[in-house]
Amino acid sequence: MNFRLVFRYLGLLLAVLSGILAAIWLWSAGWRMFGNPSSPLVIAEQHAGWSFLICSLVGFLVSGSLWLWTRRSPPQFGRREALLLVGLSWILGAALAALPFLFWSFFSGRGASGHPFGSFIDCYFESMSGLTTTGSTVLSNIEDLPRSILLWRAMTQWLGGLGIVVLFVAVLPTLGVGGKKLFRVEAPGPDPEGVRPQIRETARVLWIIYLGLTLAEILALRIIGGMNWFDSVCHTFTTLSTGGFSTLNASIGGYNTAVQIIVIVFMIAAGVNFALYFALLRRRVTGVYKDSELRFYLFLIFFSTFIIVITLMAAGNPIVLTRVTETGAYEEVPATFGNSLLHGMFGALTAQTTTGYCTADFNQWPFLAKAVMLTLMFAGGCAGSTGGGIKVIRVWVAIRVLISELERVFRPQVVRPLKIGSAALDSDMKLATITYVFGIVALFAVGSVLIMTLEQWLNPAAGIDYTTAATASIATLCNIGPGLGGVGAVENYGWLCAESKIIMCLLMALGRLEVFAIIVFFSPRFWRGD
Amino acid sequence: MNFRLVFRYLGLLLAVLSGILAAIWLWSAGWRMFGNPSSPLVIAEQHAGWSFLICSLVGFLVSGSLWLWTRRSPPQFGRREALLLVGLSWILGAALAALPFLFWSFFSGRGASGHPFGSFIDCYFESMSGLTTTGSTVLSNIEDLPRSILLWRAMTQWLGGLGIVVLFVAVLPTLGVGGKKLFRVEAPGPDPEGVRPQIRETARVLWIIYLGLTLAEILALRIIGGMNWFDSVCHTFTTLSTGGFSTLNASIGGYNTAVQIIVIVFMIAAGVNFALYFALLRRRVTGVYKDSELRFYLFLIFFSTFIIVITLMAAGNPIVLTRVTETGAYEEVPATFGNSLLHGMFGALTAQTTTGYCTADFNQWPFLAKAVMLTLMFAGGCAGSTGGGIKVIRVWVAIRVLISELERVFRPQVVRPLKIGSAALDSDMKLATITYVFGIVALFAVGSVLIMTLEQWLNPAAGIDYTTAATASIATLCNIGPGLGGVGAVENYGWLCAESKIIMCLLMALGRLEVFAIIVFFSPRFWRGD
Repeated sequence: MNFRLVFRYLGLLLAVLSGILAAIWLWSAGWRMFGNPSSPLVIAEQHAGWSFLICSLVGFLVSGSLWLWTRRSPPQFGRREALLLVGLSWILGAALAALPFLFWSFFSGRGASGHPFGSFIDCYFESMSGLTTTGSTVLSNIEDLPRSILLWRAMTQWLGGLGIVVLFVAVLPTLGVGGKKLFRVEAPGPDPEGVRPQIRETARVLWIIYLGLTLAEILALRIIGGMNWFDSVCHTFTTLSTGGFSTLNASIGGYNTAVQIIVIVFMIAAGVNFALYFALLRRRVTGVYKDSELRFYLFLIFFSTFIIVITLMAAGNPIVLTRVTETGAYEEVPATFGNSLLHGMFGALTAQTTTGYCTADFNQWPFLAKAVMLTLMFAGGCAGSTGGGIKVIRVWVAIRVLISELERVFRPQVVRPLKIGSAALDSDMKLATITYVFGIVALFAVGSVLIMTLEQWLNPAAGIDYTTAATASIATLCNIGPGLGGVGAVENYGWLCAESKIIMCLLMALGRLEVFAIIVFFSPRFWRGD
Repeated sequence: MNFRLVFRYLGLLLAVLSGILAAIWLWSAGWRMFGNPSSPLVIAEQHAGWSFLICSLVGFLVSGSLWLWTRRSPPQFGRREALLLVGLSWILGAALAALPFLFWSFFSGRGASGHPFGSFIDCYFESMSGLTTTGSTVLSNIEDLPRSILLWRAMTQWLGGLGIVVLFVAVLPTLGVGGKKLFRVEAPGPDPEGVRPQIRETARVLWIIYLGLTLAEILALRIIGGMNWFDSVCHTFTTLSTGGFSTLNASIGGYNTAVQIIVIVFMIAAGVNFALYFALLRRRVTGVYKDSELRFYLFLIFFSTFIIVITLMAAGNPIVLTRVTETGAYEEVPATFGNSLLHGMFGALTAQTTTGYCTADFNQWPFLAKAVMLTLMFAGGCAGSTGGGIKVIRVWVAIRVLISELERVFRPQVVRPLKIGSAALDSDMKLATITYVFGIVALFAVGSVLIMTLEQWLNPAAGIDYTTAATASIATLCNIGPGLGGVGAVENYGWLCAESKIIMCLLMALGRLEVFAIIVFFSPRFWRGD
């Protein structure tokens, strides 16, 4: 294993993160200087500023040392090195990204006790949740936080969503090493028609697409939605990365209907394979129009919205929003067709694209609506999107394989090729896909049992129920954010014990990196290299 | 599709069932004639006797008509015909087997209202549960039933367990048609080393083995366990078929420790691939000793027993038995090592072999013990045993495939053949296995959502919770019997609405016939035959 080169690239990643931390410090210092010193926002900002400055310096120091150590690394870069680099990027990247939270809680003098960022594991949970675009939070009162901390939370998701890795896919090829393999690891899902040739050029185009969408959503939220600039930027960062961190406790439920509709549109856009935008730019419109995954993705969205709307209207109960009224109670709206459509579609999309925003407390929805949402959570976004979960194309392949295996029972002589675009899937590819789907379900089950057992053992006072443990497992593994029960739309993850949070950090990394890049760490053969 | 020949064999099956019904009528009539006429057992028996006589006549009439209609059927018997025959055997067999319950409830004058066998669907549920060796019951007070009805319940399981189909595998080859294909459908699980050549001879030997085990358990229960003859026969029928119907409300918990240990031994025996007994008879001991499935099966039993014992002892709560004391409360014993081992091992085995007997109310056990039991329920018995579930060999293959797919990420050039015995599994076989495992998990999920939704919609007063719906789905799909919550060890399925019972009948048939033989009925291509 060529550890040196791996750490060289890790150093580069830390340098980029440190640069962004420094930029946030500059921004924070700037508006504190010119802001009204008695404004509560400016007061809250003071300690946060110091935290960013120190973290940035720590980051530069570490990356500088790594650079000195690894200057003369041999150029061999194989599959093993690529896997190690990807895995460590998230594990160590989250550690650096957690520091601003931790230092801020120290500097603000609130101390360890009672503060949500009082312990490193809580901060690490939050930053891992950010970089993996999960959106689970340990915070109970988000609105309490300094602006720079909120911006950093949103930024981790934007970076995590497509940023860091596409950046590395764009940078690595210029060094002439391993980029192709990295992209193989990172490009989510099987994608034979994909964007492999000329990875560097492709990554550049993907960045432009991502930036373009970012700009478009910021402007839409600011101009059509009437959001302020800060909220527009933060929510754009967390929509396009399908992350789901918000700056309000009520999440998107705290904004008007126009904002909710804009977010719906951009959630749909974020869940689409970015290679399709690439194809559109090259005017290959028929390929996009005929894309099986896109069609199945849109079908899932509209079909599940339909079921949820029917269920909400049939139940007839008022829909409880996440917005709190002046009396301190959650606001309720009647389950008219309009309300059911808006919140039902929002719920379906937030589940399927694994964004995890909320407008309504879906924990109180009828069972069938919740079951549909959980199914969508497993399915996730398209391959090559920023969405998590199993990925639509894999679900599509799994269903097709199920049907063809069924047909083989009574027609063993018939062979029906399974195609994605123009490429036929061979037996090995089908096996890999079905195994992946099965593996995710198994990981979900193991995760839920571990969380349940750890909580019952170490945190019995909280009285966890299995719905909470199971949905905490899927919400972290599929990078969604909120679950049901004790981790529902209007709850948070702060009350869970540190040991379960470690398990959930692992689940988030496993889910985001499509399992393999993390699980190889546990394989002795990987390290032995035989 | 050669419908005539299919119905010819179905007629044969109905004739066999009718013969058994007639035999039970004779037995019932005999002991009523010589019994004490004022004994409550004899009084209860009167209506039941008539019921068996009439059902037997109805059965003979139907099978006679079928014989007349199908005398001159063409001899073509292909895969499609085999599938149709197997599927219809269970669907129509259960209908005939349900009639004694229905007629008895009419004749006993207890009428439809309030009687557990008052509706056809309840009776069909019970007989399908019997023939599929599931062991779920709609009865709340089993001890209330006439002896002949209890014997018939046990008999359906014994027949279902290995009987009917092995009989047909033995009979069909004499007719020179389709036997091999049928055995392919029926022999549970992939079994390349299996018993295919000379199927007729093999089936004969299997019958002898089954009868030998039956005799051995009857004698063990009678002589060592001190059970009466009737209970010994009934419980032997339902142990070896891994069915789990009992003659006591307290199930095996109503008997002494010796009986419980004997049942443990024979549950282990029933969960083993019967081809191994066959090999033992031919003195191929090394093959048995080295059998991967057997080893993994025994490992699962002992490892899960170990975890359950630890969990029960660590929790320290008394173990609640299914036996009721004189005060009307369930008996409790302290969680000593001995008690934990006995009831923990019994629980692990009843789950893994999918028998479904109870000695303790495992619904009250700690979460981890229940999670282990649920995992075992999915795994099930060995292929070629009477146990249900996914089958140990498939779980073993699935785990091996998961590991090798993981290894392929960083060592794509290494090919490691996966062998069962001396036969290597090819890619297609692996794909079929993993797809099957995934399909069962998907069916379980769909089943649980259907049951939950139907109950909430049509039976809201019962207030079902998701644990109940989920475990009812797995308990029927994997042919276990009891689940957790409202269908737990000391509960029954009588309170569920008729619509959910229909779903559960379907799940039982799907699980028992390894999905394909039932699900092809829903495929238009199967009927079109193109």
